Amino acid sequence: MEIVFLWPGKTRHQHFRALQEEYLGKVSQFGRARIIETAEARGLEEKWAEKILEKEAEGLEKHLQDGYIICLSDKGKEMTSEELARLIEAKAMISSRKLIFLVGGFLGLAPRIMDKANFQLSLSRMTFSHELARVVLLEQVYRALNLIKGYSYPK
Amino acid sequence: MEIVFLWPGKTRHQHFRALQEEYLGKVSQFGRARIIETAEARGLEEKWAEKILEKEAEGLEKHLQDGYIICLSDKGKEMTSEELARLIEAKAMISSRKLIFLVGGFLGLAPRIMDKANFQLSLSRMTFSHELARVVLLEQVYRALNLIKGYSYPK
Repeated sequence: MEIVFLWPGKTRHQHFRALQEEYLGKVSQFGRARIIETAEARGLEEKWAEKILEKEAEGLEKHLQDGYIICLSDKGKEMTSEELARLIEAKAMISSRKLIFLVGGFLGLAPRIMDKANFQLSLSRMTFSHELARVVLLEQVYRALNLIKGYSYPK
Repeated sequence: MEIVFLWPGKTRHQHFRALQEEYLGKVSQFGRARIIETAEARGLEEKWAEKILEKEAEGLEKHLQDGYIICLSDKGKEMTSEELARLIEAKAMISSRKLIFLVGGFLGLAPRIMDKANFQLSLSRMTFSHELARVVLLEQVYRALNLIKGYSYPK
């Protein structure tokens, strides 16, 4: 099993970053797992959104060569934790494919990157900040791995 | 406007606690807001769940005397951030009622406490740990208050 969490730009907020690292450590107890934070488009104003997303897309696509790509999207499918566990089990544990969880930055993801995803996942009907979404995703993957193994999970 | 966040037991995890405090500070910029952490049933094993929830219910009910109570529940209604903002606007800002957000502890909430809620809200189809749920809720309330005021919100 290999799980990659991929997004543009470093998570900057101190406590979200600490939680991100902590959950990565927990996920790593189950197999290979890493976070790849690609280059962020800096020094451009938000009105250049398309340009920013295109610059970020260049960094992201290098890491999307192979593997099953699950992309976070507000238009994605909502799942229970149990359903996400079944998906991870099927893709990463049974078929041994690399699993790539892709999360956008401040402005989201370029459409051409979204199109590469095999599956679009929505964490909630609510909109989360991109840094909060990363932590929620990591917690859910950790929860899923526990569910797959039949471990009880701290509530 | 007065917003109360109510739950049994202190949030223990260092970074969730820090985020909780940080978002409370942000929410407080919009009006009176506080977190009330009532007594937690300690020293009882999980098999005594009913007893634990009953003990915690005693602490919680003192703070449920008046106000509009929104309780987090996995059986609650899912909403978009925009819909939550409209609910908060109607209850806390237009009718000036105290708004009480109630979140369970490790084992959830006693049924008789759940029954007091005016509204049951679900943050996601996924199951979040109770400490993560508290932070997500605070972030959503902060987001909602920004939406109501027409401010742009950091993504």
